[in-house]
Amino acid sequence: MESVAELAGVSRATASRVVNGGAGVRASLREKVQQAVDELGYVPNLAARTLVTRRNGAVAVVVAEPESRLFSDPFFAQHLRGISRELSAADNQMVLLLIEDQADYERVGRYLAGGHVDGALLFSLHHSDPLPEMARRVGLPFVIGGRPGWPGAESDRDLVYVDSDNRGGARIAVQHLRDLGRTRIATVTGPLDQTSSLDRLDGYRDLLPDGDPDLIAEGDFTPDGGGRAMAELLARRPDLDAVFAASDAMASGALRVLREAGRRVPEDVAVVGFDDVEQIAAWTEPPLTTVRQDIEEMGRLMARLLLRRLTGGSDGPGRPGPTSVITPTRLVVRNSA
Amino acid sequence: MESVAELAGVSRATASRVVNGGAGVRASLREKVQQAVDELGYVPNLAARTLVTRRNGAVAVVVAEPESRLFSDPFFAQHLRGISRELSAADNQMVLLLIEDQADYERVGRYLAGGHVDGALLFSLHHSDPLPEMARRVGLPFVIGGRPGWPGAESDRDLVYVDSDNRGGARIAVQHLRDLGRTRIATVTGPLDQTSSLDRLDGYRDLLPDGDPDLIAEGDFTPDGGGRAMAELLARRPDLDAVFAASDAMASGALRVLREAGRRVPEDVAVVGFDDVEQIAAWTEPPLTTVRQDIEEMGRLMARLLLRRLTGGSDGPGRPGPTSVITPTRLVVRNSA
Repeated sequence: MESVAELAGVSRATASRVVNGGAGVRASLREKVQQAVDELGYVPNLAARTLVTRRNGAVAVVVAEPESRLFSDPFFAQHLRGISRELSAADNQMVLLLIEDQADYERVGRYLAGGHVDGALLFSLHHSDPLPEMARRVGLPFVIGGRPGWPGAESDRDLVYVDSDNRGGARIAVQHLRDLGRTRIATVTGPLDQTSSLDRLDGYRDLLPDGDPDLIAEGDFTPDGGGRAMAELLARRPDLDAVFAASDAMASGALRVLREAGRRVPEDVAVVGFDDVEQIAAWTEPPLTTVRQDIEEMGRLMARLLLRRLTGGSDGPGRPGPTSVITPTRLVVRNSA
Repeated sequence: MESVAELAGVSRATASRVVNGGAGVRASLREKVQQAVDELGYVPNLAARTLVTRRNGAVAVVVAEPESRLFSDPFFAQHLRGISRELSAADNQMVLLLIEDQADYERVGRYLAGGHVDGALLFSLHHSDPLPEMARRVGLPFVIGGRPGWPGAESDRDLVYVDSDNRGGARIAVQHLRDLGRTRIATVTGPLDQTSSLDRLDGYRDLLPDGDPDLIAEGDFTPDGGGRAMAELLARRPDLDAVFAASDAMASGALRVLREAGRRVPEDVAVVGFDDVEQIAAWTEPPLTTVRQDIEEMGRLMARLLLRRLTGGSDGPGRPGPTSVITPTRLVVRNSA
């Protein structure tokens, strides 16, 4: 900045005012400073500027999933696309931080605390996830993807989240299978330490309150996990005539195992998935009947809620700040059920 | 920091020295400060600290690929796994920044210039990529994934990169097809504005200097692009008896199109891929003969070279800093050729 001021023949204060976009500087001086900036290739030290403005124009997206799932389940690509488009439109940089194991939490927490981002979108929280508390301690605004499930979360007005109507969606799926006359309806759940899995299981149980526990098997949201759970179900209840898989990825694994077991879909076993995710749902054999959630839109909503928190957080004087949003789900009927 | 010092009953300078890990403070005082830190939930303002230490403990990974490819080609997952493991081992945070379109470059450049990271790993550079110049202007050390191809890049000692032996690998592939007695060997290339694609095409041409240009079609490293290029090749030269596809993803698309066209693999058309990537090469029908590059190791090497640049950059007095590395490739024979 000294050099810019010297070359432009102005005071350091004037140079600084021009570089930081401040008003009250004559056009002729502004131009001189701009020329000096260009000639010297000067780039403002934003770390220093952050101390003053407290804005980086950047938002962290923290995903606590093994990269093997992050990069194989199109769910995340769609979610991140929604987020990055919304952030780009507001000229905010998306900063992606991955958490693979316990040791990563502290380092990510330090980065979040370090003044490098203005806010955070937190994903795939498990029950004992320390991130919301870390963010709160350092005063970093955040929005959560998926309903937080720990005790007290429901009544905590700070925990703004975006989720889809998981329970309602599961009910639609099971109702569809019942309407087809199926009576031995199994389910492959997601990992049961995540609320999306629990909520979908609750929806299944809403319609089958007296269901056989042998018809429930836990998967892990991957095709392989879905296949393993399907094999378990077939071993326990070879007479099952329908499956609700709590994700399309798991449904694709279940379809493979059913095929290998010689069961025809949908004739012998009808299958319904969840997500209606690109590159899976319409491409399985047979194409998948599934519960659609608008994944990209959920990403956009998360980004929008966070940006509102960053720019004031309220709809107007006396109005409350942003609150959580539940997006609707609907059935998409293809050939598997 | 004031509050920590007050609660601990020490001077601000002492508190600061303890928090910043400095030596020369008595154990009893250190403990008092630590207790105060814990009690107050104090987190150091790293943005301020960065101004002093110039170290964030964070490295940017910039990938200029549409997220549709980033999240569907397991190549990136393996590369990022290598990088993040190496960075984690050195307690450095990986900060992933995606570039989707031209407008993103300026914003990413600003983030890189903003003092939020200590260095950068730059990926998927195209010929006119402005990122290396941006990083250089702000003095940010960087390492490049893949040989940079613009004029002058070869002789620029600053441009440290990690690449695999693309040209040699392509030669191995074509030699294998010739050894099988194939005489009309086609190739599906990657996008020809990337050096990895050009180098693989050069390797193909090394062995087939008088080849028919009708046997060369450009793909885009995706299964769909590989399928489209394969369809072109079949239309132009229905008599082809072998294909070298410059990535496993493209080879998988080519296999699908060959199957739909009624060609048996390898009887009618032998197919060799490139990458030996997880979740593709061994899973195609038939499993893919391919050129293996150690993708995770390439990621580790990139991270290691950058960390060396950050911590001094030389092997010892009078020794030069890190230089580029070319990793070997080898043929993995499965059923497709």
